[in-house]
Amino acid sequence: MSTGFSFAIDARDGGARVGELSTPHGAIETPAFMPVATYGAVRGVSADELRAAGAQILLANTYHLEERPGSEVIDGQGGLHGFTGWRGPWLTDSGGYQVTSLAGRSRLDEEGVTFESSIDGSRRLLTPETAIQIQERLGSDIAMVLDECQPSGTDSAATAALRAAAERTLRWAERSARARRRADQAVFGIVQGGTDSALRRANAEGIAALGFEGYAHGGLGLGEEPTQRADLVAATNEALPAASPRYLMGIGYPSDLVDAIAAGIDLFDCVIPTRHARHGVLFTREGVLKLRNARFKQDAAPPDPDCDCATCAQHSRAYIRHLLRVNDTLGARLASVHNLRFYLRLLEEVRTAIRAGSFDSLREKVRAAPVR
Amino acid sequence: MSTGFSFAIDARDGGARVGELSTPHGAIETPAFMPVATYGAVRGVSADELRAAGAQILLANTYHLEERPGSEVIDGQGGLHGFTGWRGPWLTDSGGYQVTSLAGRSRLDEEGVTFESSIDGSRRLLTPETAIQIQERLGSDIAMVLDECQPSGTDSAATAALRAAAERTLRWAERSARARRRADQAVFGIVQGGTDSALRRANAEGIAALGFEGYAHGGLGLGEEPTQRADLVAATNEALPAASPRYLMGIGYPSDLVDAIAAGIDLFDCVIPTRHARHGVLFTREGVLKLRNARFKQDAAPPDPDCDCATCAQHSRAYIRHLLRVNDTLGARLASVHNLRFYLRLLEEVRTAIRAGSFDSLREKVRAAPVR
Repeated sequence: MSTGFSFAIDARDGGARVGELSTPHGAIETPAFMPVATYGAVRGVSADELRAAGAQILLANTYHLEERPGSEVIDGQGGLHGFTGWRGPWLTDSGGYQVTSLAGRSRLDEEGVTFESSIDGSRRLLTPETAIQIQERLGSDIAMVLDECQPSGTDSAATAALRAAAERTLRWAERSARARRRADQAVFGIVQGGTDSALRRANAEGIAALGFEGYAHGGLGLGEEPTQRADLVAATNEALPAASPRYLMGIGYPSDLVDAIAAGIDLFDCVIPTRHARHGVLFTREGVLKLRNARFKQDAAPPDPDCDCATCAQHSRAYIRHLLRVNDTLGARLASVHNLRFYLRLLEEVRTAIRAGSFDSLREKVRAAPVR
Repeated sequence: MSTGFSFAIDARDGGARVGELSTPHGAIETPAFMPVATYGAVRGVSADELRAAGAQILLANTYHLEERPGSEVIDGQGGLHGFTGWRGPWLTDSGGYQVTSLAGRSRLDEEGVTFESSIDGSRRLLTPETAIQIQERLGSDIAMVLDECQPSGTDSAATAALRAAAERTLRWAERSARARRRADQAVFGIVQGGTDSALRRANAEGIAALGFEGYAHGGLGLGEEPTQRADLVAATNEALPAASPRYLMGIGYPSDLVDAIAAGIDLFDCVIPTRHARHGVLFTREGVLKLRNARFKQDAAPPDPDCDCATCAQHSRAYIRHLLRVNDTLGARLASVHNLRFYLRLLEEVRTAIRAGSFDSLREKVRAAPVR
């Protein structure tokens, strides 16, 4: 266990649980949602606004930051905490997903992932070891291991590829564990295995045996049904240490979150609230508002009359719609603050409901809202 | 004089003066700088941030707002004060300058300016009367008359065109004065005449005879030397009522502001601080910083160690440079907050210096800084 890092579960309600995750830069009440700060900032939104919206921890993308400004620069500025405006806890991903999805041509072998830099076209290599080293320079409180994500398929070749990726993910996790040097940084392992429940479970047992400070469910959100996903998460969790935090990566809509929380998930990240905000789609408990729609042209109501965010306290649907239409970046900013507050407040309500033993009824309410 | 509108001069130092301009939505200490909120917002910056930076009054562009969302919409939302997040005083321009510079093909005759809408290509007509009517719907505290701006030239055709434009501006000012209906909105006349001092002075006498609540110097900043501009302003001011506020439109750099203040100017607006910010050019008393320059890559200092703005209190040159490079809109926002605070604080220092009788020495200091 790293210095300054611990996890304590305070309350349970069925599979759902409330905990406190301590890090060297502050404690996080779980279940928690991590806003995505790709380049070290949630686009257009300040650290003060994130704090006011209830954010406890941010996620930054290692691949993006290594491209610009480079982890050496951030290391020289005191890591993410010194470089950015957010002094609280940071989680960084390994960069593996972005390397294969965003960079120029990439090739994966046992050593790691070779890719072309989007900045200068140069060939670069991301390995389990360099992924840890880059994240150590970034100075995040929680680093993620490099993993291999394979889509599930039905033929025998796809099944074999899925199994090979899970096995490689386990070998890479061993290399990651050996590569770590920082005592003040937690590292989370990642479970792969696609939609094959037995494979995921076996992979989880192998990853758990390596003794990470937390465990993530990878390779989900790629097309499986939400109920199937919740079943996979629940089955996999049985193979993970109950006392460790569990993180469902890159998921999802509010209903996905409450389903996963029922299956025992403690941590989430997702671009949905901020990406939707930039497209003018705002979350409310009654469903989403598509603010670019002409029917909001003269709508003087706040985006969500039940919301306590800074945007809803001061601005109308008509004004935010106008700003989005004229591409004034204040529009995306105001919408982002609202959507983040919606997600972060939902998690606050989830924690309260779990403590009160009423999580199931909150979950049903969230699932009933047409928020897609 | 409109209801709720007055101007009182408190102190003088040479030609410079400190005054208080009262409007229905609050008082403005002059000399004052008005941040430009083209579409009803200073791009990416919130009303709270503008207030914290010391803004007292904002300028909105009538042409832009009439195109989107339309003055009818804003009227229906309680005018600019109800529609936007800024509840303090607003000044609107007439839209004339934008119609001729930004809209599709435009044609100017005695009736007004015919132009093609950039939204739907339809033919529209902006007249002295409709310019006032649109601004009355926008509900600004100060409206501007429609004027005709002609570049100065040296041949006899250019001289004749300049004279004709000044005479038309005077006739349009008469029509504007007759068209106004709102008792709670001030209207400022605009003096034209290019760089012809005698023509400007004669035009000012005609405009002043119409009895507006304030007077603007139009058609400057089009290539004349700063010293020539200050001379033109000073000469024209002699023909304007000393007790009325004087506004130099669309100007300029800090040195231009102090020169114009010495010539008796009370109000300014300019896009320079916000436009420069978006391009990564930050003002300091020691000169400008071009933050995109590689030498700031590892610079942990705040943009301006002497600045008291929210950006300089929390962020480094290296971080803002990074955000600008990755096109995170937080970068332009943080830079805008700083540059606006730089301008607004300069005006605070100007007012203090005028009251103390030390304006000349402040002016010399500002002129010495290489801020272009």
